[in-house]
Amino acid sequence: MHYEAMAIYNVAVVVGSIRESSLNRKIARAMCAATPDSLACRIVEIGDLPLYDPDLDENPPAPWTRFRDEIASSQGVLFVTPEYNRSIPGPLKNALDVGSRPYGQSLWAKKPAAVATASPGVVGGFGANHHLRQCAVFLDMPMMQQPEAYFGGVSDDKFAADGTISDQGLRNVVGSFGQAFAGWVDLIHKGRNLLACDPSGSDGERPAVPLAT
Amino acid sequence: MHYEAMAIYNVAVVVGSIRESSLNRKIARAMCAATPDSLACRIVEIGDLPLYDPDLDENPPAPWTRFRDEIASSQGVLFVTPEYNRSIPGPLKNALDVGSRPYGQSLWAKKPAAVATASPGVVGGFGANHHLRQCAVFLDMPMMQQPEAYFGGVSDDKFAADGTISDQGLRNVVGSFGQAFAGWVDLIHKGRNLLACDPSGSDGERPAVPLAT
Amino acid sequence: MHYEAMAIYNVAVVVGSIRESSLNRKIARAMCAATPDSLACRIVEIGDLPLYDPDLDENPPAPWTRFRDEIASSQGVLFVTPEYNRSIPGPLKNALDVGSRPYGQSLWAKKPAAVATASPGVVGGFGANHHLRQCAVFLDMPMMQQPEAYFGGVSDDKFAADGTISDQGLRNVVGSFGQAFAGWVDLIHKGRNLLACDPSGSDGERPAVPLAT
Amino acid sequence: MHYEAMAIYNVAVVVGSIRESSLNRKIARAMCAATPDSLACRIVEIGDLPLYDPDLDENPPAPWTRFRDEIASSQGVLFVTPEYNRSIPGPLKNALDVGSRPYGQSLWAKKPAAVATASPGVVGGFGANHHLRQCAVFLDMPMMQQPEAYFGGVSDDKFAADGTISDQGLRNVVGSFGQAFAGWVDLIHKGRNLLACDPSGSDGERPAVPLAT
Repeated sequence: MHYEAMAIYNVAVVVGSIRESSLNRKIARAMCAATPDSLACRIVEIGDLPLYDPDLDENPPAPWTRFRDEIASSQGVLFVTPEYNRSIPGPLKNALDVGSRPYGQSLWAKKPAAVATASPGVVGGFGANHHLRQCAVFLDMPMMQQPEAYFGGVSDDKFAADGTISDQGLRNVVGSFGQAFAGWVDLIHKGRNLLACDPSGSDGERPAVPLAT
Repeated sequence: MHYEAMAIYNVAVVVGSIRESSLNRKIARAMCAATPDSLACRIVEIGDLPLYDPDLDENPPAPWTRFRDEIASSQGVLFVTPEYNRSIPGPLKNALDVGSRPYGQSLWAKKPAAVATASPGVVGGFGANHHLRQCAVFLDMPMMQQPEAYFGGVSDDKFAADGTISDQGLRNVVGSFGQAFAGWVDLIHKGRNLLACDPSGSDGERPAVPLAT
Repeated sequence: MHYEAMAIYNVAVVVGSIRESSLNRKIARAMCAATPDSLACRIVEIGDLPLYDPDLDENPPAPWTRFRDEIASSQGVLFVTPEYNRSIPGPLKNALDVGSRPYGQSLWAKKPAAVATASPGVVGGFGANHHLRQCAVFLDMPMMQQPEAYFGGVSDDKFAADGTISDQGLRNVVGSFGQAFAGWVDLIHKGRNLLACDPSGSDGERPAVPLAT
Repeated sequence: MHYEAMAIYNVAVVVGSIRESSLNRKIARAMCAATPDSLACRIVEIGDLPLYDPDLDENPPAPWTRFRDEIASSQGVLFVTPEYNRSIPGPLKNALDVGSRPYGQSLWAKKPAAVATASPGVVGGFGANHHLRQCAVFLDMPMMQQPEAYFGGVSDDKFAADGTISDQGLRNVVGSFGQAFAGWVDLIHKGRNLLACDPSGSDGERPAVPLAT
């Protein structure tokens, strides 16, 4: 049985806003800093990805390949995103699509994941959060359910000049979320490893077979 | 009271797939051909739109301006789209975002709209259909509710070489949808015009005021 | 052409919580009080409806018949509801189902509608709000899109002893919502009436024909 | 470390339709029959549950207590349900609510779960399926993502007189789903048990703390 007291998981962190001074990027950084040593987090850029077009599958643009390689080398995915028009921002949805193709070669499958949303308004990105969760069903990513994170009322004055979170309350919940995510990644991978070595022959998760889609 | 027996409405048709031989594009064309003379449909291209980035708002890329001008000059919007990963395709979500910004200058508001989804699978794009409807709430687009259109089992062999629909059943429901949409556009515009001239002072729709977002 | 300067519409108000001192019931009352004279609002009770069971369709329980009669006699529907477990409360979903059956005899079709959600938390019932909107698509109820109403942070101390809203901010947005709804009901009915008399032969909304469900 | 070659998990099976000859009930039975010996499945009835009313929390009706006891004694939950009006049937949503209350005493938390939907139409209950998944986020139930199960075109003629599935294709996918679910239940429980005994002190899942709801 594969077992490590201090397993290290590479985590791809995908930020839904591509503007330079994105609040979600700052939150993502603070969240990563709060995770235990078992996670090695790295922000994977999405701002340079050409729009997904199946006609390009045979000769994929270089940024697609770069992005896919980074997702492929991760053992978990953390999404931190604003909401645009009650759903996932276009650039983030495009990244999800790029990573899921060509058909049958999705790179998201089986990776434990979580989503946190943040917005200046009070609803805190609820719409984007749950639309992304619906995608994760198809993409076969086991999603952390709790804690949910809808960070509302987020604005520049909750951050220090160096980009860290100065608001105590926000910093606490962001940190709790990061730690919970580390536990979720560990749970999924250890459970899966254990089943793979199970002498009773149980084989845990099956490969995703479309039933009626 | 403003009244025209044969009002003409410009309709922006937005196709969710940007590949060249898109089945949804063929369906969109057939749908437009089936609408009565009251609608002038035109496909508005989205494949060249750079990813939405608020940092570019001050100097918007030319394709954003071209797209926004085309939406601005329409009196109705028809979405015809596949589903990617149980939600709106990235390129289409990006187009929705581009048309909604800069903040406070959304071009979608008040335009009556409808969405049809099509896919090779049997579910027919249900997930994309309703995610787009959630966006339309925020964008303040009155949506046609019925008939719903989830065109499943769509494949190349339902189309003739010239791109028209050869499958009788699909052609019929596509045509019915286009005609129903024309009625919906007419209903919203005529109801709105009538209220605007109402001597009783009723003022119909209010400007969208965010309550708690 | 049918036209009335002061049309009167009966509005069925459906409150999603059935507890006696429901905050949503108080909000619903305040909302109704704020509507113009064109609407006659009446709360339709749902707490006594037996769970929907198709086996009872032939001999429906008396509360089902009472409820259906009240919906049938309305020209608009206003939903005011909390969120239970990120979705529509069970009692309200049950009422939607009772009103939609027996198959082919739904009473909701074509009635203009709106939904406001309220909760003690900050998210304000976003999940319930949009799940109900998804139902409204199938039920063919034209939904008011804006303003959206997610009333968060609602608690007893925002109400006076007589049940009216004492909090100025909440009272204002509740009132604005009620007035906007009156405009929406008027728009849909007047647009529909106008089309019905249109000499050009346009017939507006088509009967709901399931396409691919 | 806790480890059993043949762990036994009690599974509460909740069927969304309460009519006597429900097709979903038949599918649920077939699904249970196809699970390995590691699962002990039992259908938990919901048809006698009074509508959830917080005013009854202090003196709960006997059926609520009976239902809560059955959920409490399970280590996994399997939902098999039709779609009513593009969402969860009222009786099933009511059962979810009853099991989640009184506040702070939800019985659903941490139980691994799955949902299969079935309908006569081709969409196969997609709307109900994903609305239930949104509830499961709040209820903190780890959901199996793949395989998805939207069983469309289900009708009486796919079943034999004794209630078993006679249609070979349907029987196969129902069986595959049941087996995949057994693996998911095993994965979550074994991963959780392993973390609980982890000498490195990682504590896996955190208790659900509402962040911004």
